[in-house]
Amino acid sequence: MPELKRRLAVARGDEPADLVIRGAKVFSVFTREWLDGDLAVADGHIAGIGDYEGDEVLELSGRYLVPGFVDAHMHLESSKLLVDEFARLVLPLGTTAVVADPHEIANVLGTDGVHWLADLCADLPLDVFFMASSCVPASHFESPRRPLLPGDLEGLLNRRRVIGLAEMMNFPGVVSGAESELAKLALPGATHVDGHAPSVLGKALNAYAAAGIRSDHEVSTIDEGRERLRAGMWVLIREASGARNLHALLPLVDEFGPHRLAFCTDDREPEHIAEDGHINSMVRDAVAAGVSPEDALVMASFNPAQWHGLRDFGALAPGYQADVLVLPDLERFVPELVLKAGRPVAEIPRLEVPEWVRHTVRIRPLATNDFAVPWEGDGGARVIGVIPDQIVTESLVDEPLVDGARALSDPARDLLKIAVVERHLGTGRIGLGFVRGFGLRSGALASTVAHDAHNVVVVGVKDDDMLRAVRRLADTGGGVVVVDGGIVKAELKLPIAGLLSDASLDEVITASQGCVDAARQLGCELPSPFQTMAFLALSVIPSLKITDRGLVDVDRFELVPLGL
Amino acid sequence: MPELKRRLAVARGDEPADLVIRGAKVFSVFTREWLDGDLAVADGHIAGIGDYEGDEVLELSGRYLVPGFVDAHMHLESSKLLVDEFARLVLPLGTTAVVADPHEIANVLGTDGVHWLADLCADLPLDVFFMASSCVPASHFESPRRPLLPGDLEGLLNRRRVIGLAEMMNFPGVVSGAESELAKLALPGATHVDGHAPSVLGKALNAYAAAGIRSDHEVSTIDEGRERLRAGMWVLIREASGARNLHALLPLVDEFGPHRLAFCTDDREPEHIAEDGHINSMVRDAVAAGVSPEDALVMASFNPAQWHGLRDFGALAPGYQADVLVLPDLERFVPELVLKAGRPVAEIPRLEVPEWVRHTVRIRPLATNDFAVPWEGDGGARVIGVIPDQIVTESLVDEPLVDGARALSDPARDLLKIAVVERHLGTGRIGLGFVRGFGLRSGALASTVAHDAHNVVVVGVKDDDMLRAVRRLADTGGGVVVVDGGIVKAELKLPIAGLLSDASLDEVITASQGCVDAARQLGCELPSPFQTMAFLALSVIPSLKITDRGLVDVDRFELVPLGL
Repeated sequence: MPELKRRLAVARGDEPADLVIRGAKVFSVFTREWLDGDLAVADGHIAGIGDYEGDEVLELSGRYLVPGFVDAHMHLESSKLLVDEFARLVLPLGTTAVVADPHEIANVLGTDGVHWLADLCADLPLDVFFMASSCVPASHFESPRRPLLPGDLEGLLNRRRVIGLAEMMNFPGVVSGAESELAKLALPGATHVDGHAPSVLGKALNAYAAAGIRSDHEVSTIDEGRERLRAGMWVLIREASGARNLHALLPLVDEFGPHRLAFCTDDREPEHIAEDGHINSMVRDAVAAGVSPEDALVMASFNPAQWHGLRDFGALAPGYQADVLVLPDLERFVPELVLKAGRPVAEIPRLEVPEWVRHTVRIRPLATNDFAVPWEGDGGARVIGVIPDQIVTESLVDEPLVDGARALSDPARDLLKIAVVERHLGTGRIGLGFVRGFGLRSGALASTVAHDAHNVVVVGVKDDDMLRAVRRLADTGGGVVVVDGGIVKAELKLPIAGLLSDASLDEVITASQGCVDAARQLGCELPSPFQTMAFLALSVIPSLKITDRGLVDVDRFELVPLGL
Repeated sequence: MPELKRRLAVARGDEPADLVIRGAKVFSVFTREWLDGDLAVADGHIAGIGDYEGDEVLELSGRYLVPGFVDAHMHLESSKLLVDEFARLVLPLGTTAVVADPHEIANVLGTDGVHWLADLCADLPLDVFFMASSCVPASHFESPRRPLLPGDLEGLLNRRRVIGLAEMMNFPGVVSGAESELAKLALPGATHVDGHAPSVLGKALNAYAAAGIRSDHEVSTIDEGRERLRAGMWVLIREASGARNLHALLPLVDEFGPHRLAFCTDDREPEHIAEDGHINSMVRDAVAAGVSPEDALVMASFNPAQWHGLRDFGALAPGYQADVLVLPDLERFVPELVLKAGRPVAEIPRLEVPEWVRHTVRIRPLATNDFAVPWEGDGGARVIGVIPDQIVTESLVDEPLVDGARALSDPARDLLKIAVVERHLGTGRIGLGFVRGFGLRSGALASTVAHDAHNVVVVGVKDDDMLRAVRRLADTGGGVVVVDGGIVKAELKLPIAGLLSDASLDEVITASQGCVDAARQLGCELPSPFQTMAFLALSVIPSLKITDRGLVDVDRFELVPLGL
């Protein structure tokens, strides 16, 4: 209350502000005007726009002041960076708040992991809000350390900074009225729910919306966008590393205005952010494509805050948190200065990482033999067909190379073994199959980043290299590794839950690039081999996927044998 | 959950809807389109818009389907009708939900009264949401039965259907940072707060908004509206019986679009609603003034629901409550059919009124002498100058007619006595003064409707008629009465808290008109004498007012003596 009292005194002009920004154009998200006036800040909040005096005065004529950007839906883990380093990366780009679904870490470390991550964010200058991960596992074909049950979600929803239920990825379950999914939606705190309904249209979409789910970020066409808006859903326009929807959806702004449209990044790789930017890159690209700066800014700030009910975020007006971007122009959208809660972002201390989040790769001792694929049939085998830069796959059929009673990789025909090894409980459960598209002539690629359960995924030519790669990940606590001839050629260590690094952005990018280069050396020409591999275990994206339980025909939503 | 399960089955088209409306244009508040498609209803909610079958099918080609209207801010008590009769009146006009501040009854019956009123509304087909009355009393010059303290508000805010803190009328207190007001704003449930800030502009408005108050319905000019929008506040455009702001504020729609604008009635007399309509009259008048029907409809339905966070109200889309108006045209906005939660409104049973709300007029036995005004001075006396159809008054000065040591009414100069008699606790406290504007040649007018504390206000020529009128109100439990020569000439009985009738609309209007006619007979030519009188005790509206504690100079915000 003393803070509020002083804020009001500053607003009245009876006391000097902590900071006054003078001479700039101040963007009103409410009226889409550029207001002339001093922006007065008191105690981290905006006291008023008008004629003010301050203890500190910044003269910024010719500049534009806009509210900090709010990412409407994202997964912190996709950056592979610990949140302090993520904050160091995105704050200077103007992202001052994010709404995160922590479902990657939840698959590995359960609610403990979510609480740890949320605690870790508590003192960051970046505001991180969480949605309770609704779909752990993504489907019953996947094996997280443990599933999150309605009781887990109830606990999370009661936590400060957890503001709703994260993307309901089990859209077939919702649409069909599965008790398990309706139980989640009936939770007391689950009045605010994000959606995830790729390609769902018509009556199925009506059912999904009728369940009370009022957003979707899996929108890739104008028609899908139109239908969602009409059904009362927000369209969260996504520009992720692997799924880029911005340009396809911008005509919605022309057609209906920016209302109920908000920007999000979903999954951005560290390289992508470092090279191209974050939410600011979406604003820049939207404006370059002809959207007015005012509309683009609203979709990047007020709209995401509004969708998520973040009442003091996303606007420059009295009472709002003073997250202010100083822009030199309305083209590049690279802030010249970022004020977070009224202050330039100070150096962010390195966060401490406890032991218990570093020991998550638990694999039953394996032998080369565990990667052997028994083969009796004389028909074809199911083969996962990789599509470069897509997370959907083709379901192919081909004759494997056979040696006795075993099917082998056949690099000459780009037919490689793929395995997913359960890595949370050390059960030794392993799913085996074949994949086409990696093009390896020798060696193996492996990773503990394998959506959503994040078991170990490994692709390789020889069983012993596959084994070596998996063992290396068990030894290092996880990450990405490239092995050839029994030797580790390159690796990116992600010791935190097998998902996150505690190194700097530069180190992560260097190691990551090293892995890609090593894969190239082995013959892989995929643009993003490890990103592609990371989604081969995601059992809710069509068509053929693989988990530790075996091959999943996603279209039929069932496990299928390797041989036809 | 079984309801939701079935609703999803209907949405999918797997089960027939309860009701399908076919052939009409369905308004989307989200895209401002008129959609073609069947509107399917299941279990009181909209299942979908598309191609549907139903147990019942209404063919309504050529008609327009729009969401039910939501009144963004109002006081149920102003209708003088018990809520069942109020619902009978407004539902056919298309108002299907209201957000009510119960501060009239709270002044008389405290939180007990609010809980009673809220319970009474629980089974009505009209959805009544409440805001916790933040300013009981309106100021310390007024005497309700008891003040509502922060603890009272905390209790109310925890109640189902109480969705926030009602209009913070003590805007000087908020702006100046008074502890009492900040304590209310700091309550756990007080994240959603309505404002009331007449004529507040500039830095004072910044302070008001910085306190977290994000709406105002006391907006009467475009400039005030602009400033509020820029300050992040919603403008609740009001068209009350005594304060009509619609036409003055419609240019805001042109300038900024309909966003963050919503319609409200605040205080509408029963005659006003019966003759002109309710929220639908604002839609009609806005459209007649050139606003597009789509914009007007949004301000009457989705926007008020959005401001108040009523997530399932104000739109025709899957999951929303099926409050549907069938309109034959987009000019008159008189529904041909109103569906409330998917059904035509059935007969509303009469509500039972308990004894304890009927005995609220407790007056210490008074004598004629109590109305005597001692007068020693030879200077002038302060006189309340009534302005017809306004609730603001002038602060006049005139020489009273003196008889010995007493000042008397002087009808020849339209200088009449006015008194406010404390009526909750029987203290006998009485405030005395003079008023100009009623024009009575004889007799007295009295009422227990006297904002906001609702003590008895009485204006008269002779003390014995004033006494008779007050006694009559004590005998009948309150209402409005006209007395002349010791005889009750007309009365409107409002036995419930001295504010509400339990009679029908027609009876209330007839009795009310009878009182106005009787006042006319006595020489009063004010357009709405009792409405005017009801606001003479409201100590937060300039300039000179009177309460049971005496004359209040509202501009200086202090009690002042009668003589200069």
